[in-house]
Amino acid sequence: MNDMSNLKNLDVGYDIPALPGMDEADIQTPCLVLDLDALERNIKKMGDFAKSHGMRHRVHGKMHKSVDVALLQEKLGGSVGVCCQKVSEAEVFARGGIKDVLVSNQVRHPAKIDRLARIPKLGARAICCVDDIANIADLSAAAQKHGTQIECLVEIDVGAGRCGVQYGAPVVTLAKAINAAPGLKYAGIQAYQGAMQHLDSYDERQAKTQIAIEQVRETLDLLKAEGIESDIVGGGGTGSYYFESASGVFNELQCGSYAFMDADYGRILDKDGKRIDKGEWENALFILTSVMSHAKADKAIVDAGLKVQSVDSGLPLIYGRDDVTYVKCSDEHGVVADPGGVLKVNDKLKLVPGHCDPTCNVHDWYVGLRGGKVEVVWPVSARGKAY
Amino acid sequence: MNDMSNLKNLDVGYDIPALPGMDEADIQTPCLVLDLDALERNIKKMGDFAKSHGMRHRVHGKMHKSVDVALLQEKLGGSVGVCCQKVSEAEVFARGGIKDVLVSNQVRHPAKIDRLARIPKLGARAICCVDDIANIADLSAAAQKHGTQIECLVEIDVGAGRCGVQYGAPVVTLAKAINAAPGLKYAGIQAYQGAMQHLDSYDERQAKTQIAIEQVRETLDLLKAEGIESDIVGGGGTGSYYFESASGVFNELQCGSYAFMDADYGRILDKDGKRIDKGEWENALFILTSVMSHAKADKAIVDAGLKVQSVDSGLPLIYGRDDVTYVKCSDEHGVVADPGGVLKVNDKLKLVPGHCDPTCNVHDWYVGLRGGKVEVVWPVSARGKAY
Repeated sequence: MNDMSNLKNLDVGYDIPALPGMDEADIQTPCLVLDLDALERNIKKMGDFAKSHGMRHRVHGKMHKSVDVALLQEKLGGSVGVCCQKVSEAEVFARGGIKDVLVSNQVRHPAKIDRLARIPKLGARAICCVDDIANIADLSAAAQKHGTQIECLVEIDVGAGRCGVQYGAPVVTLAKAINAAPGLKYAGIQAYQGAMQHLDSYDERQAKTQIAIEQVRETLDLLKAEGIESDIVGGGGTGSYYFESASGVFNELQCGSYAFMDADYGRILDKDGKRIDKGEWENALFILTSVMSHAKADKAIVDAGLKVQSVDSGLPLIYGRDDVTYVKCSDEHGVVADPGGVLKVNDKLKLVPGHCDPTCNVHDWYVGLRGGKVEVVWPVSARGKAY
Repeated sequence: MNDMSNLKNLDVGYDIPALPGMDEADIQTPCLVLDLDALERNIKKMGDFAKSHGMRHRVHGKMHKSVDVALLQEKLGGSVGVCCQKVSEAEVFARGGIKDVLVSNQVRHPAKIDRLARIPKLGARAICCVDDIANIADLSAAAQKHGTQIECLVEIDVGAGRCGVQYGAPVVTLAKAINAAPGLKYAGIQAYQGAMQHLDSYDERQAKTQIAIEQVRETLDLLKAEGIESDIVGGGGTGSYYFESASGVFNELQCGSYAFMDADYGRILDKDGKRIDKGEWENALFILTSVMSHAKADKAIVDAGLKVQSVDSGLPLIYGRDDVTYVKCSDEHGVVADPGGVLKVNDKLKLVPGHCDPTCNVHDWYVGLRGGKVEVVWPVSARGKAY
């Protein structure tokens, strides 16, 4: 029988999984926890790298959706601003005190364009991407209506196969049209190669990034020949930032996952063939889960299933354990192979999620831990901001 | 250029995607929409089936996490109560007016047990599952502490390989222990075969369910021989409810997905070899998404990616269209193959999600449609209630 005499905070765990000051052992599961020491080291490391390579770092807020984490990245990592993917996210960051916000995506619906044009009134620089000349008149009309300025990056498809125009002449055409539109300003190029960030091989990632770099270089030459300056040449993720930083072409990084790490990124290899979660970056994000059934001797059932994580990039890893393995995920349950029968009901495990971005997106709170205590509880500020 | 002169409700779409009375065309995407006519027909059909087969229907609230849908299932489908998977969900349903709530799962942490014991004070019958004799003393102590009663179903693992004891004698042992514990009452058996619900073949599903039925029958015979009556013999899902209903052994169904349907359930076959979404059930749930980029002639990029759906059971289908196909899903984008180049920016598509449960779990709102108008906007009441 559990000892229930010491139970404090009985109502914690329904709207919030923990309170600051609580022992780590009292946290209600399943929830997201952050190792604050590891998080701070990751943030500082990337900040130092960017600084020493003369790069600005615009951190990707779509990964964590947290104003608190973004402010920490500014404080400890010297980040110059945030990028995010939706206007509704941009509003959260602007309201939270981030002064330079890029929606690294197309903004096409009139209501979204109208909201974007109002972001400067919240005190932030507003930037978005453009890949269609038909978008420019709408952006311009909204900026004029609100008496604000929207800066625009021309998005180049450098291999991700999603949004973006072809490199070269189409970019010049769009840049000119942007600069000719009242209320708009051409601010540079968006050239994020998202499709190769998760390739295991360092050499393969380098080869794909090199293609992007050459496309950007050629485009910048064309723009310069027309007298068009690009304030921002942005791109780079956790799997490629060193390539863009060495290119002499890019000047802004847009890394996100480095801060938290996840199982899918963790398994990519650095230039020495070592997993990037074994030296380059530390796991700072975990799903804390509890054993809730052990009716079979060799199998523990934990309370973290599909409702608290995304398995699009594979199953989670169990952190710091090689005696038990997370082998199956259903809506509400995880099945953990426990061949030695070492786990007991209510034992806790830390899972490294397969993919951090869509996992953070289903949670309301980050529980920040240091020295066995809950130090902070941060809201996932932009959760649900999909618009 | 978009006509922005008719724009109403500019701020809709940030905390809520629509307002009642709006035209369907004005809804902000991406969001969940419900075809209310289809939903009501599904609910009524399953209710009529249960009634005509002498079965009670305890609808599965973990699928929709919505008090409004649960109340509609009660009103139109005659459901006797709700099952859900977490105590925090059970509280939401009890507070929302559902009088009979089963947590069809193990409840093991002391704080969760304490909350479960307080659910009767919210006006609802509280039932949970048990698969471990060590759980009984804790449940009993909490019920006594609060002066309430917790009813317990003994969970049998009838093939899902998750929680649950073996059929037969272990069930009798637990039932006796429950009835001997102050504050607890043995209420019956939980025998849900979750592992076979999504098998395409009707015959395979029948064979697996038949195994479960025989295990339950044998267990009930043992219990009866000891003079122990089982009020609830529960199980059955959207892929098997007709088998449990014909068994003469089960008396409660626990179907969830039938009400909304999804792509993964939709492709299983009925006894005539027909997909169940082509006659048995209607698609009532959709992710409404918009085209946001069409920079490549044969490819449209839509605004529904991993942040608004779970792809654990496959990609979504595009409803009512055979000219375009959703072929790739990344964090924020969906890639739609558009070989004929028929889509334009801001065109809307209705996606049938791959898996409804974890998809509903990432949204805050259901936008209910009838006749081209937004009739209701319902909160996903228990979203985030993972504890």
